[in-house]
Amino acid sequence: MEHLLQILVTLVILYALARFGSAIISRFGLPGLIGEILIGILVANLVIGDFNLMEFLDLEMPDPGVEESVGSSTYQIVYALAELGVIFLLFTVGLETRVNDLMKSGKAAFFCALLGVIVPFVFGFALIMATEGNMNHALFLAAAMVATSVGITARIIKDMKLMDTLEARIIIAAAVIDDVLGMIVLAIVKGMVESGEITIGSILTISIQAAAFVFLIIAICKWVVPRIYDYFEARKNAKEAAGKIPTSTNKLVLAIIVCLGMAALAEAIGLAAIIGAFLGGMLFADHAWEWDLEHKIDSISTFMLSFFFLNVGLQVDVTSLTDTSVLILVVVTIILAVIAKLIGCSLGAKLGNKSLDGHSLKIIGFGMVPRGEVGIIIASIGLATGAMSQELYAVVVLMSVITTLIAPPIISKLFKDKYHDEYVIMPEDRV
Amino acid sequence: MEHLLQILVTLVILYALARFGSAIISRFGLPGLIGEILIGILVANLVIGDFNLMEFLDLEMPDPGVEESVGSSTYQIVYALAELGVIFLLFTVGLETRVNDLMKSGKAAFFCALLGVIVPFVFGFALIMATEGNMNHALFLAAAMVATSVGITARIIKDMKLMDTLEARIIIAAAVIDDVLGMIVLAIVKGMVESGEITIGSILTISIQAAAFVFLIIAICKWVVPRIYDYFEARKNAKEAAGKIPTSTNKLVLAIIVCLGMAALAEAIGLAAIIGAFLGGMLFADHAWEWDLEHKIDSISTFMLSFFFLNVGLQVDVTSLTDTSVLILVVVTIILAVIAKLIGCSLGAKLGNKSLDGHSLKIIGFGMVPRGEVGIIIASIGLATGAMSQELYAVVVLMSVITTLIAPPIISKLFKDKYHDEYVIMPEDRV
Repeated sequence: MEHLLQILVTLVILYALARFGSAIISRFGLPGLIGEILIGILVANLVIGDFNLMEFLDLEMPDPGVEESVGSSTYQIVYALAELGVIFLLFTVGLETRVNDLMKSGKAAFFCALLGVIVPFVFGFALIMATEGNMNHALFLAAAMVATSVGITARIIKDMKLMDTLEARIIIAAAVIDDVLGMIVLAIVKGMVESGEITIGSILTISIQAAAFVFLIIAICKWVVPRIYDYFEARKNAKEAAGKIPTSTNKLVLAIIVCLGMAALAEAIGLAAIIGAFLGGMLFADHAWEWDLEHKIDSISTFMLSFFFLNVGLQVDVTSLTDTSVLILVVVTIILAVIAKLIGCSLGAKLGNKSLDGHSLKIIGFGMVPRGEVGIIIASIGLATGAMSQELYAVVVLMSVITTLIAPPIISKLFKDKYHDEYVIMPEDRV
Repeated sequence: MEHLLQILVTLVILYALARFGSAIISRFGLPGLIGEILIGILVANLVIGDFNLMEFLDLEMPDPGVEESVGSSTYQIVYALAELGVIFLLFTVGLETRVNDLMKSGKAAFFCALLGVIVPFVFGFALIMATEGNMNHALFLAAAMVATSVGITARIIKDMKLMDTLEARIIIAAAVIDDVLGMIVLAIVKGMVESGEITIGSILTISIQAAAFVFLIIAICKWVVPRIYDYFEARKNAKEAAGKIPTSTNKLVLAIIVCLGMAALAEAIGLAAIIGAFLGGMLFADHAWEWDLEHKIDSISTFMLSFFFLNVGLQVDVTSLTDTSVLILVVVTIILAVIAKLIGCSLGAKLGNKSLDGHSLKIIGFGMVPRGEVGIIIASIGLATGAMSQELYAVVVLMSVITTLIAPPIISKLFKDKYHDEYVIMPEDRV
């Protein structure tokens, strides 16, 4: 098929299917993104006789065993739209996260993240050591169990308009800290597998780098941004007082540049791009409302975002489930992944904030369950470095997708039970 | 550089530069898109010592001599964003084009397009036959002279909020007809060059196919869409009367699917994707306002649209201009390209609508001057089939870009002179 035609055919078919899946799932009162993920799984595995949908759509996926592999050019485009969609989504979540609110939930979030990293790591490591006993496999599966994908929970919280609840703030803050810790874990594991040893120095370097980046942004939010804003306000007022027309900067253009720039910076220093975008959004949090940034960025991301959830589903190879032992490992891993986050995160949150009741702890625990793409990314690094087998990669992908699938209905239900009076589901809010 | 990081770095740098160029040019009262094109030219040709910006951004362009070549994966993504941006733009132009208004300007638009195709074709053919005398070269240059890129003029008309003026309607309608005729010319020329002969049958097939598509959509707009709409309104009212809550479809999702679907369909039958998107927009024109479609689609396209104009600039290889004979050919071709459209289109418009005054004819003539990407696409087909030389390809690219560069300020000026009272420039309207 001719090139532009292929791109358009693929995008329109994927988008139409994803939105169809979303509409069907919404009828059952579940978050539409689940429908989009399921459509992704369907598209990736549908072969009717000689007709292979993935081939027709030219969606050749990257070979996870080859580091340079990026898939077909059409898949590249779907992938880029997906990534931009989730980057802009996390930016809008950042827009609603004021640094002072984040600080308030700081202690609970910190312990929630810390235990939410330690417990799953220990569980994952123990599982593989107890079964196949391969140290490298155990280290990488453990690292993949650690990462929380905040994108999915953030979407639910945003759809339910519950951003200003205590639980939501703890989850978002904990997910940021979790990601920083997760990246440190990944760096350590990768170093151990590659060199057979790891120095205290290299652990310290990556830890300090990641933590410094986050604290730097928070400090900038708290002390630098207000001063810059005041300076420009004063200059504008002075100009107006002098009878001149003040020149206005286009705030939205600035926001887009900061969003993409911060995402790139985070990637560059080894954090996830979405964490950079989230921190970038926080820089604008105090004036987002005034400049109507949220709605505008939302419009940009929503078209692309369907491709993100679809792409999560595309990663799942159903044929790997025909082997019974793999199937058992998948089920055990999923159960451990859920339980480990539930125990670790709720225990941690309680440790940090004694006033949280059982219901709130459950919300926080389940809010941290989805692994999403972060687990998959870690697994693909393991595969690329030869530290992971193809079967274990399939296990991690399924664990990531299924934790992502089961958590949303539970989170919505728990939030609904607690905040049922204010609860408004707005599926039509999305593009 | 790691893959996602490369994508983000490239996009943020290109976007920031494009918007910077746009802001600078806007200060001079010129349309911002010129700044974006100029930035594209700069990016494509900037080499400082050992530093090559295109290499740093991983923007390896497709090799125009190789049909399957699509460039680096990062360029692919920029290209896809650019195409989606202009497709959504033309869709919003379609949203504002009611079929009844289009019919009113039908005769003037038809003759404008017809003479606007014949005159440039004759001029271009004569130029090459008189200089180098190569028949194949002459045919392809002539075909490249024919195509009008409605995207640029449409953007200006939209920015100036002049969609409902007579001139704007004639230009838009003529550009659609022009494109249909242009595609027929291309098909004929390609057939002649490839087989050495062309049958009446094949000319008829492509002509009928293209015309049928356009008329089919117009007929659907006029007779089918109102009935569908009435049917759903009636059903909704019946449900409400029966005390049930009517299920509402998400109009925006439907609009996006129709937009991309029509663009794909147009590509598939050999028309340009943007023409399909335009016709798709027309299907919604009667209810676009009621459903607030225009603003929503606008938000989706504006981020991507900067990449479109930037990409036009990226096509220009300044080094090809060092040869004096090529330079002279470029200048002559540009002059002929402008004069031919001016004469052909204004003569045609006058022929179709005797009441048009000189000022209106000038607006229409200059409105049809930009060749934009359509000329470049035709030239690259010529290069791929071996019917065009590298030098002639450079000539066509420069002709396309420079007609696109010089027309906008003239069009704005002419519109401003005529409608200066209502004229409001809203650069801040764009993302």
